[in-house]
Amino acid sequence: MTVFRTLLAAGIGLGLLAGAAIGQSADEKAIQAAIKARQAQMDLYAFNLGALGAMAKGEIPYDAAQAGAAAGNLAKLTTLNGMAYWLPGSDNMSADNTRALPAIWEAGSDVGKMARDLAEAAAALETAATTDLAALQAALGPVGQACGACHKAYRAPE
Amino acid sequence: MTVFRTLLAAGIGLGLLAGAAIGQSADEKAIQAAIKARQAQMDLYAFNLGALGAMAKGEIPYDAAQAGAAAGNLAKLTTLNGMAYWLPGSDNMSADNTRALPAIWEAGSDVGKMARDLAEAAAALETAATTDLAALQAALGPVGQACGACHKAYRAPE
Repeated sequence: MTVFRTLLAAGIGLGLLAGAAIGQSADEKAIQAAIKARQAQMDLYAFNLGALGAMAKGEIPYDAAQAGAAAGNLAKLTTLNGMAYWLPGSDNMSADNTRALPAIWEAGSDVGKMARDLAEAAAALETAATTDLAALQAALGPVGQACGACHKAYRAPE
Repeated sequence: MTVFRTLLAAGIGLGLLAGAAIGQSADEKAIQAAIKARQAQMDLYAFNLGALGAMAKGEIPYDAAQAGAAAGNLAKLTTLNGMAYWLPGSDNMSADNTRALPAIWEAGSDVGKMARDLAEAAAALETAATTDLAALQAALGPVGQACGACHKAYRAPE
């Protein structure tokens, strides 16, 4: 099928699902691919927050366009559908290469609410980022708190 | 400043910009952070395309909700502002850990047009993905072609 040859020629597509380690079961491969993907999303959060944090601290000059781009990226990233990344069985007791605690998937987990809190704080930050430096600084607080709340509740220490 | 303590406590923020390797200059750290971020974006492309490709090939059952989620993620990801990731000086002749060719930054580069082509193809895929399997299969082609065109022109072989 031409579509898949095109995807393969592009160097994308099914490679991730194929898994890197020999001897992994299909499930283990899918779990590792999901863990890698959600960590990629966290890396993109951190990259965009890094630029905003550096501006807020005065380490780099405030630039409304740059701040708006970073905050706009962050806001979009927080609205990605993460169901495929947060597979049951991808917690740190069941899988390697992750600090995600089993409590994420247990009854009473409020991880969904925490994700919505982050998306809300990021949407507010997107507006604030292009207003001025003081607005950017103020709006970073709730984003950091949303990150921290989820990490504290659902991420194992290093 | 409380905001930054909160960000640091959340384990995010400035760590990426701080760089991993001792002895890196500030510029080198920024370049490596940008390379890592754009590779994270590519990983997320691949993860979402992997699920869509597996459905299109019949390796997993077609599921409109799952396909829509993956294609919706892909469409959002293709509209992220990449200016901060594609720093001048982050090509494979100037920096480690990248296959990005210097031609990306040279006069006459059509990398911007290629990025818009990908975003257009991904937007069409988002609509097609929830229609039916045949529509999904047809709409994957242009996405794969957009990926491949840019990789062929601007990415060094492994």
